[in-house]
Amino acid sequence: MKIGILGTGMVAQSLAPKLVELGHDVLLGTRDVKESLARTGTNGWGHPEFGDWHKQNSHIKVGTFADAAVHGELVMNACSGHGSLPALKAAGANNLNGKILVDISNPLDFSNGFPPSLFVGNTDSLGEQIQREYPSVKVVKTLNTVNAMLMTNPNMLGGGDHTIFVSGNDAQAKEAVIDFLKSQFGWRDVIDFGDITNARATESYLHLWIRMFGQFQNPMVTIKVLK
Amino acid sequence: MKIGILGTGMVAQSLAPKLVELGHDVLLGTRDVKESLARTGTNGWGHPEFGDWHKQNSHIKVGTFADAAVHGELVMNACSGHGSLPALKAAGANNLNGKILVDISNPLDFSNGFPPSLFVGNTDSLGEQIQREYPSVKVVKTLNTVNAMLMTNPNMLGGGDHTIFVSGNDAQAKEAVIDFLKSQFGWRDVIDFGDITNARATESYLHLWIRMFGQFQNPMVTIKVLK
Repeated sequence: MKIGILGTGMVAQSLAPKLVELGHDVLLGTRDVKESLARTGTNGWGHPEFGDWHKQNSHIKVGTFADAAVHGELVMNACSGHGSLPALKAAGANNLNGKILVDISNPLDFSNGFPPSLFVGNTDSLGEQIQREYPSVKVVKTLNTVNAMLMTNPNMLGGGDHTIFVSGNDAQAKEAVIDFLKSQFGWRDVIDFGDITNARATESYLHLWIRMFGQFQNPMVTIKVLK
Repeated sequence: MKIGILGTGMVAQSLAPKLVELGHDVLLGTRDVKESLARTGTNGWGHPEFGDWHKQNSHIKVGTFADAAVHGELVMNACSGHGSLPALKAAGANNLNGKILVDISNPLDFSNGFPPSLFVGNTDSLGEQIQREYPSVKVVKTLNTVNAMLMTNPNMLGGGDHTIFVSGNDAQAKEAVIDFLKSQFGWRDVIDFGDITNARATESYLHLWIRMFGQFQNPMVTIKVLK
């Protein structure tokens, strides 16, 4: 499948090689290709900057946000919270309309340090903001509750016996994403978590996740829902 | 142990009989004893109102909020979010100072229906508001992430193999509460979750919990942390 990924950070760097390995035709989109490829060193999380990463992953196609949106039959938003709406604007509504947008972003606000707060929440969510801004895009919120490594490899923790949530307004799009998570990444415990307003819940969960990450000094932490 | 419980709702009705059964000397506190005992029928959650409940549980001592605070070596806040600060005010700082207050409340705002939003969150929490208002009380936030039945009987779900979080500024108080949860209620996976600011995380988790409750039509839902 042709997949466009918006973003060049940790999430995109986890998704892209895995999807290529699975046989998909992937294009990573960024704001400024030249500038992104020129970034070297490690970021604040100790992760390689995009330029260095791409030297080790030169088989991954890179283009603009619009290139990625045009390319993808399926588009994935792997941008930061603050970067998401600007990236989608650059991608272009006309290039996104009618498509499924898997939204993995979280509205994290690090302006007061760690742990971050959320810049939208409680009675709204970033997933909903994106859906409102792009009413003809089928926004499906998922994967935002786990570390980038775990998104594509749930079996890395607890034998894969943990939970992922999927929310969105379009039932068919949601079903397609659920199938994708199961068949491509091996997710087993996938909860169809209602319409996009439920992104409020999974984004708010970041308050808990980020503190577990901080206190355990371990990003490989997640939850299994018991009922 | 002498335990004072603030509140007469579902949480108090779950805690009190269990604690008495365990041999503790319990006093339930309410704003107006006569009025509380006069309440009959079922509430909006299909749960018996306090008067009817107490007819079946007449061995449970009932008094004012202040009576409960005076009585308890340990005090538990089982009030609603909106009811918590008024209850503590009625209980009286002088009756609470120096004691451990187990805070189980959640700042749920049902004014726009179900699912509720939170009336405090993101950069603050009800646990923190209580701690700020009562600096000489040792506030320990816990049990607020699970259904009232599960609080005292974790083994009712998944063989008890799920997680509870404990946050508070006083290390000894927190340790005492962790021991209490383990020895009295049988909790096994208890996470010492740092200082009281982490109540932001467990209270925010209610966004997720309440939607799982609503969508599964089942309050017996919780999480196990995997790391």
